[in-house]
This record gives sequence, structure tokens and C-alpha cells, in this order.
Amino acid sequence: MAANTLWLNETLPEITHTPYETALAEADAAVWFPKRICLDRLDGAGEAYTVSETADSCIISGNDAGLLYGVYAVLTAWRAGRPIPVGHHAPAYALRMLNCWDNMDGSIERGYAGRSLWFDHDRVEYDPERIRCVASSLASVGINTVCINNVNVHESALSLIDGQLDEVAKLAALFRAYHIRLLLSVNFAHPYIAGLESADPLDPAVREWWAKRADLVYAKIPDLAGFLVKADSEGRPGPYTYGRSHADGANMLAEALEGHGGVLIWRCFVYNCRQDWRDRGTDRPMAAYEHYHPLDGQFADNVILQVKNGPFDFQVREPISPLLLSMPKTNLALEVQLAQEYTGQQIDIYSMPGMFRETWDTMGSERIMAAAAVSNLGNDRNYTGHPFASLNLYAFGCFAWDPASDPETVTRDWIHLTYPALIPGDADRLLELLMRSREVYEKYTTPMGLGWMITPNTHYGPSPEGYEYQAWGTYHRADRNAVGIDRTRKGTGYTAQYPEKLQDLFENPDTCPENLLLFFHRLRYDAVMRDGRTLIQRLYDDHFEGAEAVAKMAEVLQCLPFPQEDAQVIRERIQAQIRNAQEWRDVINTYFHRLSGVDDARGRRIYD
Amino acid sequence: MAANTLWLNETLPEITHTPYETALAEADAAVWFPKRICLDRLDGAGEAYTVSETADSCIISGNDAGLLYGVYAVLTAWRAGRPIPVGHHAPAYALRMLNCWDNMDGSIERGYAGRSLWFDHDRVEYDPERIRCVASSLASVGINTVCINNVNVHESALSLIDGQLDEVAKLAALFRAYHIRLLLSVNFAHPYIAGLESADPLDPAVREWWAKRADLVYAKIPDLAGFLVKADSEGRPGPYTYGRSHADGANMLAEALEGHGGVLIWRCFVYNCRQDWRDRGTDRPMAAYEHYHPLDGQFADNVILQVKNGPFDFQVREPISPLLLSMPKTNLALEVQLAQEYTGQQIDIYSMPGMFRETWDTMGSERIMAAAAVSNLGNDRNYTGHPFASLNLYAFGCFAWDPASDPETVTRDWIHLTYPALIPGDADRLLELLMRSREVYEKYTTPMGLGWMITPNTHYGPSPEGYEYQAWGTYHRADRNAVGIDRTRKGTGYTAQYPEKLQDLFENPDTCPENLLLFFHRLRYDAVMRDGRTLIQRLYDDHFEGAEAVAKMAEVLQCLPFPQEDAQVIRERIQAQIRNAQEWRDVINTYFHRLSGVDDARGRRIYD
Repeated sequence: MAANTLWLNETLPEITHTPYETALAEADAAVWFPKRICLDRLDGAGEAYTVSETADSCIISGNDAGLLYGVYAVLTAWRAGRPIPVGHHAPAYALRMLNCWDNMDGSIERGYAGRSLWFDHDRVEYDPERIRCVASSLASVGINTVCINNVNVHESALSLIDGQLDEVAKLAALFRAYHIRLLLSVNFAHPYIAGLESADPLDPAVREWWAKRADLVYAKIPDLAGFLVKADSEGRPGPYTYGRSHADGANMLAEALEGHGGVLIWRCFVYNCRQDWRDRGTDRPMAAYEHYHPLDGQFADNVILQVKNGPFDFQVREPISPLLLSMPKTNLALEVQLAQEYTGQQIDIYSMPGMFRETWDTMGSERIMAAAAVSNLGNDRNYTGHPFASLNLYAFGCFAWDPASDPETVTRDWIHLTYPALIPGDADRLLELLMRSREVYEKYTTPMGLGWMITPNTHYGPSPEGYEYQAWGTYHRADRNAVGIDRTRKGTGYTAQYPEKLQDLFENPDTCPENLLLFFHRLRYDAVMRDGRTLIQRLYDDHFEGAEAVAKMAEVLQCLPFPQEDAQVIRERIQAQIRNAQEWRDVINTYFHRLSGVDDARGRRIYD
Repeated sequence: MAANTLWLNETLPEITHTPYETALAEADAAVWFPKRICLDRLDGAGEAYTVSETADSCIISGNDAGLLYGVYAVLTAWRAGRPIPVGHHAPAYALRMLNCWDNMDGSIERGYAGRSLWFDHDRVEYDPERIRCVASSLASVGINTVCINNVNVHESALSLIDGQLDEVAKLAALFRAYHIRLLLSVNFAHPYIAGLESADPLDPAVREWWAKRADLVYAKIPDLAGFLVKADSEGRPGPYTYGRSHADGANMLAEALEGHGGVLIWRCFVYNCRQDWRDRGTDRPMAAYEHYHPLDGQFADNVILQVKNGPFDFQVREPISPLLLSMPKTNLALEVQLAQEYTGQQIDIYSMPGMFRETWDTMGSERIMAAAAVSNLGNDRNYTGHPFASLNLYAFGCFAWDPASDPETVTRDWIHLTYPALIPGDADRLLELLMRSREVYEKYTTPMGLGWMITPNTHYGPSPEGYEYQAWGTYHRADRNAVGIDRTRKGTGYTAQYPEKLQDLFENPDTCPENLLLFFHRLRYDAVMRDGRTLIQRLYDDHFEGAEAVAKMAEVLQCLPFPQEDAQVIRERIQAQIRNAQEWRDVINTYFHRLSGVDDARGRRIYD
């Protein structure tokens, strides 16, 4: 962020200095800036910085990248009323990536904040001012890599490494000023589409095609981070077409990038999306591990496997993906989704800092060497649809730099930066609301790891059996007695994919975290929870409480003095969230009431 | 049809004579033609014809239209091996209409036989030979009116009574040769879209606009049948926008047409398509009656209200629409749907002659003065997607001419005309298959009037709760004990819309036709059917039997010697039908098994 304006919500002045000089000049112009900042520019590689202070000065030292991050860190701390972050700071991961699912026609797959900021009419098209605003905001939280195009690479996007390459290079230059490198999604079948007889990774002609293509691309964009690939997934082409392994496919592309210092990022979102719902021998969460665990150690050094945080697909709550814990000889990137595809679509409030904390706590940061987030950006005035959704982007940057980040501090900092006019009591109320928002959404939608009761295709609103007879492998198999899939060793055996400690934890309904009970276990409606309630009563209670909590959130928001433009969006969206929460509450409660025949113990209204 | 070629499946020679002379010349060229046909051309109006015979001659007398129908009738009888239809024949209804839901971009709403035969690229575009083939086929079964454009009149279709009018007139001339008049769907809001301040039917400027528009249209197409309107329905504009009644709206348009001898056809498909699923005070089947019954007697003489056969929307089986029985002072048209929107989409075989028989038997033909069918035509080689689907078009023509038609005779005639090479035993097997096909489809989908377990939007394949929490007013409210809506006087009161005799019949589960039990009644799964089976067992049995019957149909079809091009389509589609039937069987049985917990008494496989 530029520290004296709203985060992600500004028009920056023309840049005449380095970005950190600009940020300092702006901060300098503001009254609140208490100490003189001295910059000590060092040579050398890396992104680290050191902060020290004297009575009237704060000294930041580092190379250009380090100074950039150091200046933003110091300004943020001051703005948030925290002490100057004295000491040496280096990022946990070299790659802190945003993955944008932008299409060349200007649409964004699962985008909820307007249209693409850099594509339209099947070509690269943008407003440089808005790119600078986004780039400075990303840089201010340490994001240093942006994949600009959808992982589903449609034909028109092939031009990004072909006819549109010069335009991509110009865009790359805009981001480069903020120490951000571009990454490009490529289509595994590109050589075949371009006229070769196959896209077989072991075909020398294919290898040569990719090598030459990489040479062309790096001649224009020498600091490109590399390529991102979604292969053999949901209809995308891949090595399986040619009877090759994913190691064959990834290594072939990695070889083309190696001489240029590029990495090949390979998404591990592979599963059977044509499952027969009758088939109980296939359990979709097991798919990624089954595909990739046997390949551990076979990937080249500049290959990174990018793994979603959970084994399904960005549901409201999932256990950690076992693949993240079982590839000791492979470079891994964690992938999270900021775009609220299944979590309210930037209409409903759903803050992610707590989820990031849980994720990193469970996986142990030492196994991961990069972090990627599916972007929630678009060309809406406020960039993220709901003004609060920018917190998730901000927080992702914080955690990707420092996985030990504290959710409350991150959220509080974002509030100070974004709504500096809020008095402390109001900031506290907003903090509490945001911190609780994920649990609230979870309660009125699919609590306890239930998942997949959302409307197919649109992924907004309830549809309790919408996925039940579909080919996506996402079933809860609720009947008149029970709900959920037994994923223990006695069931599908999914728990066996975890290290022993987690295995034991999840295996037993008595030790399994209650918020994941229905992910791992099939339970009868009369099963007794740890607090003595039955499962069915817990389901009813959660839905009533969740909807009620949204109504209370609306009351809180009504009283907080947001800037006018934000206020209107916030007011409209909380009303939509109230309706959505009521719909979820009533549909899910009615669904389980019709199945179980059990009335609410507290006599609240359940429609029949 | 041209009697010596496949019905609807031919390229006609250039027409040099009247259509009936052409048909005779073709028949003459074939060896099977036993008697000399003498044509006795009379002057005068009407469409009747008289057939008499001597030892070696058959005399047909009538005006041009009468001769057309008479020649086709005689040729059909001879071809089918029936006696010459001696006597005087006149159609039951003056208007025998096909409603095509063709859009100007060439797509067809709910079309399953390819693209439009007369629209593409937002203009009128066609192959005259194919128009002649369709027109002669329609004329051969007495259809005399074709509405060429979708009742949902999108902006591009406004040009049909404006910039494209000359092209429409040319198309009208092609149809006119076969005694077929065009009908045009108009957009109630057209004056407003064209720049007027409103489309209020009581606004003199609006009345004048329509009057002038009608003058323009009739100057080019003097024999246009009139206009067709879908108003205030599923988002379409209408009189309600201006606080006017549908009588106001229809009469205003009728007035514009009156001087030209045109009729205004007003569709009665009006209901609340934004119903709250929690709302039990609204029962969608009651909507048409509630809207229109109070207006009986208020419509102008040249207004015809067009009413769907059932109160919902072309489900596999519905009771007769009560509106058809309760408008003694209003001109009514029956509307049926040949396009198999909910009944297999011209993949699954679903023959309608039996349904037409039931419909006319129930409603009593004296109340109706016109018949309309939503078309199943498209530009596929065979015109109807599945070759057997042309039977439904053929049969509609027969029933619209003579509501006393016999389903078996109609089907047998169609087989003789379409597959003349079939030996009698094979023709009998095909006859039986077609005659049973509706019951088979009903069994594996939604028997006993259950309805609405079909996939929303696409309307193909099962989705037991797909409509359950939607806004369409189409609920079955199945729970662990029972299924169905009580529509008796103790329930929603829908039965009270019927004349007393039907009311009594439907009101009581013991007298209600079993194939409509779950339309009218909410029944427990353990309710005992007339044959002693429980409801749940009947549901299981129907689904097993339905799917099994499809497998048997496939065996029969495998053995019948169809012309090669038809054979391939028939073979491919019956395989798809087998899969569809199995999917329906398993999904619906599993759904009810999960709800009821009751096992199949015969131990067949139900997935859990």
C-alpha cells in the first residue's frame, strides 16, 4: 500500500523515483510521520532488509528490493501504531505468487470483482495507472510474482507467448518497477495446436518446440518467473494423453526454462471429474496423493508442484492436503484461493487470516518453498468487489512473507491502513466482525467439514443434493439416518494418506477436530457431540446461529463510519448476505428435517 | 407427405402443378396405385372434401384446399392398406397450428433437431426446397398455420414485422402454395421499444401504433393468420406492467387485426416464476385458472386464449388444465408440445398419439376451437432429430383435423408411410414399441404424476431435488415418510377448479387415476396401491421395469430393417436412452431408498 491512502483504493501520482522513494515522499507529506527515515542501499541479491533505530531516525538497509519491503514494513508499523520492526527480515519463500484466472476476452474465471485489469478483446489491454496501483499494493505486502492468465489456457491465450508477446513484455516492465515478475500459464497441447504431430513430452520435436518458445519469450522478458501448467485436469490436455507421467511432462517443460533461470509450476489438481456416483471405490480427496506421491523424487530441480490447501477444492473448511505432507524430495508450493468461489463470492464476508494460520500450523512450513494465491482482483472501483475482500489479499502477502504471522495483527494492520479514520473502539468492532466472519459463513452453509451442498456451477447459495448424483466425486450420501463419508481406514482409507500423528487424530471421531467431523466420518443424526448435543441439533443450531450472526454483523456495520463509496457497497452486500444466510439456514434445516424427521429442540421454525 | 416417399424425409421435385396434382403424379408413377382418381374441383370456402368411389375410380371433390387434403387422405389410406375414406370430411378446427420457437440467430428454444429452417444471422434465410418439403408434409396432415418465430420475442425478432417483412412475405408465399398461413409472435412491449412512452394497451398512441403496424404487415401478407403473444410470463412484458388486465391487452391487439380478418392468440402460460419455496399458500398449477377464469366473456371475438394441455408445463403426464374446461364464453386453443422438452428430447422415444387421445377425451372437443403444437422441427437431415419423433408431428395433424382419431391407426399409418418396406410382422413390432413408449418413459422417470425430478435448465436426466428449493413453484416435498402435494380441497384446493365430476374423481385417492395419484395426493411410502403393492414398491418396480423395457426396445430395434441413415440414428439414440433410463432408475430409486429406508421387496440392486 501507499501508507497514507486506502490500501488498494487510490490513484497514485506519476512515479518519478523508485517506488520506495515515492512511498516515503507521500508518507513525508502526511503529518503522522514521527521519525526521519534513512535508507542504506546495499548491493547484492535477495529480498531481505534490516531495520534499526536511533532517537530521531529509523535506518533501513537492503538492496532495492529489500528497501522496498523495508520501507513498506516500517510505514505499516507506524501507521498501525506498532513499534518499528527492528531487526533483520527475510521472506520465508522466494516465490510469493498471485495466480490470476483472467481470460483474454476480459472475463475472469471465478472472478467477483469485475473484469480483467489487463486483458480485453482477446489482447493485452490496460490502464497503466491501475496496474501501478495494483503493483504497488502487491509489493507493499511482499507479493513478487503474478501469473496474469487463467490456468485454463484457451486458444486465444496462446498468443501470450506468441503474437502478444511484445505487449506482455510492456506489462512486465510496469510490474518490474515494483520488483514483481510475471508468470505465464501455458497450454500443454500448444505444440500440437501449433501444428506438430503431438504434444508428447518425450517427442524430441516437442522438446525442441518448447525450448525455442522459451528462448523467444525470455528474449523479451528476461526475468519471467516461468510457466504455470494445469494438465490432465478437468478436461485440460496433459501427458496422460501420450501415456507419459506427470514427471515426464513437467521435466520436459522445466528443461526448456532451466537455462533462463525459470521455474515450471505444475498444478496437482488432478482427479476423475467423470466419476460414476454409484462408484464407492473412488474417493476424490485421495486423488492428488495417488497421482503424485509415487512420483516423489522424479521431478527436476526447477519444477514446483503447486498443491491446493485442501484435498477437495477450496471448500469452506477442509483438512490439509496430505500431498503437502508427503513429498520430501519434491519442491512444493501451497495454493490458496482468495477469489471466494465457494465462500460467498465477495458478497458474503469471509476473512481468511485465521485459515492461513491453521493451514501453515498444520503443514509445517519447512516442507513448502513457495506460496500461491488465486487472485480476487478485478477492475471494480475497489479492485476486490467487497472492500473487505482486500484483507484476504493483504493477509496472503503477510503469510507468504512470514508464515508465523498473527491473524489478529494482520487484520488490525489492514484496518488501520484501509480505514484510518475509524476510532479505536470502532476498529475493534470491525476486527471482531472480520475475525469471526469465516466461522459465521461456515455455520450457515456447511459446518463440520460437510461441504458440497452449494449450487453446482454457480457455487453460490444452497443446493443440498446438487452434487449428489453428479460426476464430480463430491458426495455426502445423506439418508434418513446418517450423513457423511467414512474416510477412515475402515472406510475409503483416505486417512492413511496422512502422517501417523494426523492419521490417529482424524481416524477417531472422539479426537477428530469437531469442525472436520463430517469430512472424515459418517455419523448418525442422533450421534452425541462432545457438548452433549446430537448431530442433528448441532446442524440446526449452527444454521440458526449463523444466520443470526449475519443479522448482528449488519447492525455493527450500520454504525461504523466508512467512507461513502465503501459504505454503500458494504450496506448492499450485507443485505444480500442476510438473504443468503436465511436461504442457507432454511434450505439446509428443511433438508435435514425432511430426512431425519427430528424437530428442533428449541422449537424454532423449520419449514417442512 | 408425398405418399410414395418417406414422410418428412425427402427432396421434392420442382413443383409445376398444384401440390395435390404433384402428389398424384408421384403416386401414379408408383406401382401400388390401384384406381383412377378423379378430381372434382368446386368453388367456395372451407377446407372440406368428399370422397366417393366406383368400380374403377375414386372421386374426390372440394375446393383447392379440400382437394389437397382429400388427395392426401386417399393416398394415405391406400398406402396403409385401409379402405378408401368414402364420405364427407371437414376439419374439427379452423386453425391447426404449429408454433415454432425459432430465434433469429438460427437457434431454436427447446429445439432438438438442429437449427432453424428459416432463420439465421438475425434474418430470414432458408433453402426453398426444404421449406417445400416441410410445407407439403404439414399440409398432408392438415396443418394450416405456422408461427415461425419464438413466443419469447427477443429484440432481433422485432424486425419480422419491420425491416424483414418483405422476406417474411416471400416465405409466406412458399407456405401459401400448401394452404398454410403464417402466424407471427409479437412482443407486447414493441411500441415502447420502438420509442413510444409506454406499451400500455389503453394508451391511444399504443393502439394506433399497433393498428398501423398491422396495416403494414397485412399489406405484405394479406392472409396472415394473426399474432401470437406470450405476455407477463417468465419475464416477458405484458399488460400487468401498466396495471391493465390481460383482456385489455389482448383486445387492443385484436382490434388492430380485426379489419384484416386476423386473430390474436394469447398464451395463458402465466404463473409466479419467483415463488418462495417456503410459501405453501401458492400452488402453481392453479395459476392459469386464477388469472383467466375471472376474465371469461371479456375477450373480443377474434381473440383466442391458447392453453397448455396440463396445468404445469408439458410434464410426462399431467391432468387436463382446468382452464380448458372453464371458459364457456371464450375462444380457446389447446396447446401441446411436440418438442420433447421434458420427455426425452428426441433422444428417448416418446410417442404422443395416446396422450392426444386422452387429452381430447378428457376435455371434450366442443369447448376448443383451435389446436396448436410447439414444433419439434429443425434442420437435421430427418427434420425431427429422432426419425420416430416425426410420428408426433404427424399425429398432431391427424388429431387437430379429427379429434376422434385412433392412436393405433394413426401410428400404423405413419409406419406404412415412413417405412413402407417393413413386412407386416415387423411393422406390428414397431407399432407395439411406439404405442408403449410413453408409458416406458414415464416409468423410468416420474411415474404417477410425480413430475419435476428432472435436471433444471437442461430438462434431461434426473435431479430428484433439482426443483425443490427453487422459485418455479414445482415441488414434491418428499420426506422420510411421504411424497407429493395434497391438491384436494383439504390441501391447496386445486381440485376445486375442475367441473364437479372430475373434482370428485381426482379428490379421492381411491378413484383418482393411478397414473395421476402423486399429482393430486400426498401419500406415505407405505400407502397401499390398488393392486396391493405399497407406494414405495410401486416406485421401485416402475423404475426397474421402465429401464428393462428400454433394453428390450433396443433388442427389437436391432432386428428391424430400417433404411441405413435412419438405422444409424436409431441405434445411437436407443443406446443413449438405455443409459438415460439406467441413470433415472438408479438415481430415483436411490433417492427414495435413502429417504424411506425401505428395501426392494424383490432384492434388486438399489445403490445406497
